[in-house]
Amino acid sequence: MVQDKPLLMREVLGESLRELRTSESLTLREVSSSARVSLGYLSEIERGQKEASSELLNAICGALGVPLSSVLRKVSDKIDGQDVVTQLPRPRQSVAA
Amino acid sequence: MVQDKPLLMREVLGESLRELRTSESLTLREVSSSARVSLGYLSEIERGQKEASSELLNAICGALGVPLSSVLRKVSDKIDGQDVVTQLPRPRQSVAA
Repeated sequence: MVQDKPLLMREVLGESLRELRTSESLTLREVSSSARVSLGYLSEIERGQKEASSELLNAICGALGVPLSSVLRKVSDKIDGQDVVTQLPRPRQSVAA
Repeated sequence: MVQDKPLLMREVLGESLRELRTSESLTLREVSSSARVSLGYLSEIERGQKEASSELLNAICGALGVPLSSVLRKVSDKIDGQDVVTQLPRPRQSVAA
């Protein structure tokens, strides 16, 4: 049973990439140019609308100057606060007790 | 400058998913069935040959009973030991600084 709106890796990843970019005061144009990805595609990735391939993810991390491991840790930390196991039934507290 | 063989997210992710599956003594067949993905596709994901979509990744995590955040932390830890920034040169710290 899939929950209403499970967190998606690409959404949290995109948000994280955008935060890292803006914290470095880099524009979409600068990062898209360094990473050799179109500005529109990069924007879609940041908005969680497109999956980034592993190669592209490396290129974006390189353009941001951030190791992939740091990006993934950031994504993991963001997800950690929220329930993400969507397939296995999880015990419901109270509702239909 | 791209290094000879930069680590790819899908390869480390696939390896991590396989390790989690075998540590739970689950077969490819069992996980593919629970996650509703073909056995061949799941096997390709584990071997790092295919990118898993975010939806599929959630389904596989659900089938393994492991939160996505744990999987990503495992991937991050595996990558962390190795330099993954392939585009920008990073300053080398001397070991005994």
